[in-house]
Amino acid sequence: MQFQQRPSGRAADALRNVRLTRHYTKHAEGSVLVEFGDTKVICTASIEEKVPGFLKGKGQGWMTAEYGMLPRSTHSRMDREAAKGKQSGRTQEIQRLIGRSLRAAFDLNAFGERTLHLDCDVIQADGGTRTASITGAMVAAYDAFSKLVEAKVVPAIPVKHFVAAISVGVFQGMPVLDLDYVEDSDCDTDMNVVMTDAGHFVEVQGTAEGEAFDRATMNRLLDLADKGIADLIRLQKDELGIV
Amino acid sequence: MQFQQRPSGRAADALRNVRLTRHYTKHAEGSVLVEFGDTKVICTASIEEKVPGFLKGKGQGWMTAEYGMLPRSTHSRMDREAAKGKQSGRTQEIQRLIGRSLRAAFDLNAFGERTLHLDCDVIQADGGTRTASITGAMVAAYDAFSKLVEAKVVPAIPVKHFVAAISVGVFQGMPVLDLDYVEDSDCDTDMNVVMTDAGHFVEVQGTAEGEAFDRATMNRLLDLADKGIADLIRLQKDELGIV
Amino acid sequence: MQFQQRPSGRAADALRNVRLTRHYTKHAEGSVLVEFGDTKVICTASIEEKVPGFLKGKGQGWMTAEYGMLPRSTHSRMDREAAKGKQSGRTQEIQRLIGRSLRAAFDLNAFGERTLHLDCDVIQADGGTRTASITGAMVAAYDAFSKLVEAKVVPAIPVKHFVAAISVGVFQGMPVLDLDYVEDSDCDTDMNVVMTDAGHFVEVQGTAEGEAFDRATMNRLLDLADKGIADLIRLQKDELGIV
Amino acid sequence: MQFQQRPSGRAADALRNVRLTRHYTKHAEGSVLVEFGDTKVICTASIEEKVPGFLKGKGQGWMTAEYGMLPRSTHSRMDREAAKGKQSGRTQEIQRLIGRSLRAAFDLNAFGERTLHLDCDVIQADGGTRTASITGAMVAAYDAFSKLVEAKVVPAIPVKHFVAAISVGVFQGMPVLDLDYVEDSDCDTDMNVVMTDAGHFVEVQGTAEGEAFDRATMNRLLDLADKGIADLIRLQKDELGIV
Amino acid sequence: MQFQQRPSGRAADALRNVRLTRHYTKHAEGSVLVEFGDTKVICTASIEEKVPGFLKGKGQGWMTAEYGMLPRSTHSRMDREAAKGKQSGRTQEIQRLIGRSLRAAFDLNAFGERTLHLDCDVIQADGGTRTASITGAMVAAYDAFSKLVEAKVVPAIPVKHFVAAISVGVFQGMPVLDLDYVEDSDCDTDMNVVMTDAGHFVEVQGTAEGEAFDRATMNRLLDLADKGIADLIRLQKDELGIV
Amino acid sequence: MQFQQRPSGRAADALRNVRLTRHYTKHAEGSVLVEFGDTKVICTASIEEKVPGFLKGKGQGWMTAEYGMLPRSTHSRMDREAAKGKQSGRTQEIQRLIGRSLRAAFDLNAFGERTLHLDCDVIQADGGTRTASITGAMVAAYDAFSKLVEAKVVPAIPVKHFVAAISVGVFQGMPVLDLDYVEDSDCDTDMNVVMTDAGHFVEVQGTAEGEAFDRATMNRLLDLADKGIADLIRLQKDELGIV
Repeated sequence: MQFQQRPSGRAADALRNVRLTRHYTKHAEGSVLVEFGDTKVICTASIEEKVPGFLKGKGQGWMTAEYGMLPRSTHSRMDREAAKGKQSGRTQEIQRLIGRSLRAAFDLNAFGERTLHLDCDVIQADGGTRTASITGAMVAAYDAFSKLVEAKVVPAIPVKHFVAAISVGVFQGMPVLDLDYVEDSDCDTDMNVVMTDAGHFVEVQGTAEGEAFDRATMNRLLDLADKGIADLIRLQKDELGIV
Repeated sequence: MQFQQRPSGRAADALRNVRLTRHYTKHAEGSVLVEFGDTKVICTASIEEKVPGFLKGKGQGWMTAEYGMLPRSTHSRMDREAAKGKQSGRTQEIQRLIGRSLRAAFDLNAFGERTLHLDCDVIQADGGTRTASITGAMVAAYDAFSKLVEAKVVPAIPVKHFVAAISVGVFQGMPVLDLDYVEDSDCDTDMNVVMTDAGHFVEVQGTAEGEAFDRATMNRLLDLADKGIADLIRLQKDELGIV
Repeated sequence: MQFQQRPSGRAADALRNVRLTRHYTKHAEGSVLVEFGDTKVICTASIEEKVPGFLKGKGQGWMTAEYGMLPRSTHSRMDREAAKGKQSGRTQEIQRLIGRSLRAAFDLNAFGERTLHLDCDVIQADGGTRTASITGAMVAAYDAFSKLVEAKVVPAIPVKHFVAAISVGVFQGMPVLDLDYVEDSDCDTDMNVVMTDAGHFVEVQGTAEGEAFDRATMNRLLDLADKGIADLIRLQKDELGIV
Repeated sequence: MQFQQRPSGRAADALRNVRLTRHYTKHAEGSVLVEFGDTKVICTASIEEKVPGFLKGKGQGWMTAEYGMLPRSTHSRMDREAAKGKQSGRTQEIQRLIGRSLRAAFDLNAFGERTLHLDCDVIQADGGTRTASITGAMVAAYDAFSKLVEAKVVPAIPVKHFVAAISVGVFQGMPVLDLDYVEDSDCDTDMNVVMTDAGHFVEVQGTAEGEAFDRATMNRLLDLADKGIADLIRLQKDELGIV
Repeated sequence: MQFQQRPSGRAADALRNVRLTRHYTKHAEGSVLVEFGDTKVICTASIEEKVPGFLKGKGQGWMTAEYGMLPRSTHSRMDREAAKGKQSGRTQEIQRLIGRSLRAAFDLNAFGERTLHLDCDVIQADGGTRTASITGAMVAAYDAFSKLVEAKVVPAIPVKHFVAAISVGVFQGMPVLDLDYVEDSDCDTDMNVVMTDAGHFVEVQGTAEGEAFDRATMNRLLDLADKGIADLIRLQKDELGIV
Repeated sequence: MQFQQRPSGRAADALRNVRLTRHYTKHAEGSVLVEFGDTKVICTASIEEKVPGFLKGKGQGWMTAEYGMLPRSTHSRMDREAAKGKQSGRTQEIQRLIGRSLRAAFDLNAFGERTLHLDCDVIQADGGTRTASITGAMVAAYDAFSKLVEAKVVPAIPVKHFVAAISVGVFQGMPVLDLDYVEDSDCDTDMNVVMTDAGHFVEVQGTAEGEAFDRATMNRLLDLADKGIADLIRLQKDELGIV
């Protein structure tokens, strides 16, 4: 494929350097620092011994996510949401996305009336914070469930399949994988894709920020996502020592 | 294609009965009642002679949307958001989607420092309220801009292309177009698609509510959406008397 | 009586064209579109199988009301209360008035520990939205209780007496019945009266917006209200088929 | 007139012991402790050298009121509104009533672009706090305007007429003046009346808390209010040394 | 000690005129007007027959405090916190301090599962409102517990030791006791001290508003506080008739 | 001195292992990870080119602080303040303390009409988060001002003196320096001290959580704080390369 240079010099289908650091903080049942290049997110998984009211007595568990950014995780300082007294629409959209993605990965009927709280807090942002969050939260959740297995509270980790997420987009006419901030700020189309280790879709959210895009572009973007997610899931499993 | 019956008896690729009633209320510059079967949404477009702070002095306009549901538009009564003192994450997600979709349809540089407020209020819900809202808001916005043309405030309606939206999903294993509430409550995959009259994508938001879905299903769903949106845009243009 | 012309050409003691459309939306137990001329309000009555905490275990029911206006129901667009995160003082005043009026019409001890929620949502405003709301909510509540009778949950509709409401005021020195927006914006005195079919007062709320008014004017206004409410209650009963 | 005993032993048309203490606190331009029997309200009037946004540049002034109750001003402790983060509907209704009443008493065009803030804070409640507030705020406002006259900022106190307020109601079948808490808790009808020194109505707010009431009762209640308010305005003028 | 004049003419170690008026309002179990010169605070103590959730079933009681200022208790009018919808950080700091101080004075295990609510409302402010609040709340709480003893609900007043509070500071280089507003606005160091009748510290909160202060100054300030608090506790006991 | 063992085995006057990592994140003008043992706080300093309204046009700068904890920085997960819609009283107390402490360290008249925002976000908590925050924010602020010097916007770093903070307390009868979580949860007295490099006090906040404490204990605690802060300021200067 013939194309111009990405600002980072990466190939169109190249991920940034991705790192997953487990046991990053000491209190949470699962705690992962996930880095997609300069994007750094702390993902913790906390187990609570009860479920929300709408599930009480149904014998199933729940997983839910919250997302936040440190005020100066970004290029210019953002107002602190706790000080403003409300979460932005963007924050709510992202935490709903993380929650749905993780609930797709685990069997809610296999760990009793418990809630797994996933907290994804961005300490440095350089594009792709929501996809990094999902990718890291998968590992944090897995670690938290391992604790329940060790404690013989549940017989097995209730994983249905691994999930990971990546962004794809059209930067200066060229479909590319894993947009960083410079690309994200100047792209025509931005799509976030969540997929399983079987290559199936859990979430697809694409937006034409400039020109509307055609079906061929859509297909090329999904191809890139497919490749990137396969790499990410391989990395998740390597870190967890799963063959 | 061989498949079982939809609850409504519709063919897999059949829209519900769609109606657009212009000039539905008397105060707004544009006012449309949009009906997708039993789903009924009042879409108004209001022109304000100023732009938000972040655009002041840049010579361009802005379009923004708000969405609400009457408390008993739904099967069981929902709490009123104004009484609770906050809009839900779902509401914010939907109004952000409507706003982005409409901003893709019009040229923000062609109507001066004005804001077009789109209000989409659901008076009866039966599935597909967000796609009905986008489809109706397109017509309400067009009507509002016509007022500015009549008043010789702008030389021409600043439309770039028409947009409409439809939901598609997998109901009992079968990809179908335009899910009603019964189908939506029991589907495995739900995707909302916003497209232009050129058949290009503005927004794609797909969620695997049950099983993750594969690429072939994705393609079939996009085909259905493509067909449905072409029908909706034809209807929009008919109502507006555009050949 | 000798007097100048009202803007609408109506006689001083003439109501606008009033219409009550039952079964206006499909989900609510009672659903009425009430129109006082160009003022249009959707009134729904929803039955909930429990009472607020302060009534638990007392064996009685409760009725409560909420009121809202679509942002562009008015001449200029108002901010959406759900987006602002609070209901205005005016909104709260009106919904408290509707609630008290309806609780005066029905026997709270005759339908068990249930709550009837009345939602009055203005889709087009042209003066008199609170009086239209009370008048329409009476019929919606009656219909909702009929459902409980049909379902043999309660033995009879627990109505004590019918209530309706109307505004009266002094427009350009002349006492008039049922002010529309043009009159309301320019009147010296504005009074809202809620009465029963026995001609007794449930609520009287009069405000001298310009000059304070004397006892003779007060009496003339109450005469007008008395006549108007008798007409409205006749209409309510006709619509419900009550002889 | 033949009637049974009021709990306080007062005649049906007797006010409680009413006292107005001027200069009650030292910072405010006007500061009055008003007592209607055991009901005690601190009313302050504060002058601000600007008007709200909607009046800027129009050359007129504004008067507005806020109302609050100390948490243990009442028989059982109420939650503190500042701690709950919102004012109740009742509070908002009352402060809107006080504001309208005072704006009726003064000429808003005669004191420049200034705002008079009236704060009515109940330190002990025994019925009739809103009518005591209006009656006390009238004197506090008068004192505050006197300061502007002394400072030669305005040529004369911009009073149009004095206003005072009183409650009337039907207690055990008997129309009575100035309900205290015991009567208020057990009355069928409760009406608050605001009148001028010319005996004209500024506000009438009557509610049938039990049985709806007829026209004859309405007339008797207005007679009682008329007498009570004349007494209150005489007291206001005496305290201010106005002949 | 050689020093210049304080604005009030008081000696460096002189309190203002302090008064405690018990039974100031009639509803609360304990109600005290505390005056430190022109600073006037109403302190009420209200008994509630339950404890917060985190203490349920533990057999102990709780004491908590809230603090407020009337909008025009101060030199210029402050916004009403109930109207703004939130309590300031300063308010929260003060009410937490009052609560901790009072919990140190009483034995929480000696009055059953009850909550004592202390409300401290400033009606006139002239410096030292938080220390006046603590000093007054001590007496209000004592009175409220006396009611429980009289009612034979608890065997004895559960007091561990008396507490009182005073401010000390460095005004124009001179350590002084009990700062009034004029001194407080212009001091280099401001320290609030809460002590018991045994002369032990419950709380010390010192802030260098201008220059940081040295250990010798610290010692001199603590000496002053020690003397002032001994005087205040003597006054509390006198008022309560405790020898 | 004879004493029993601290849980950590530290001597009574021993700090935990303290580390300051500068340039911890890449966007902020100053960014420091401060660690007091297992307590880890990210402190960023952000420069904004304007001041709050109350300082506009006065030619001086401002410094302000915000504080937060990641939900699972603590032993059990805390609710996220942004999701709850308000900051706790504790949070507000801490951020006010940090702000005052830093404003004492720098000359607000020496860097123009700019605001320095200090954000202290706890990623792992083990006691002493507020003192770690102040100690780290000092370095972050210094680094941010260095940027202004490098950019020749201000002639010199406007530092008046260095400040650092430490907690001291009485653990099992023994005064100790720098309490960790285990000690903090079980101590009788807890005091936070902020001092300058001249050994002068900026803030002292002591609370008797169990028994009130006497003057001798107070003196011993201040001695410990004095020593600890001298060590911390030496470390700050070493990290910054200041001799």
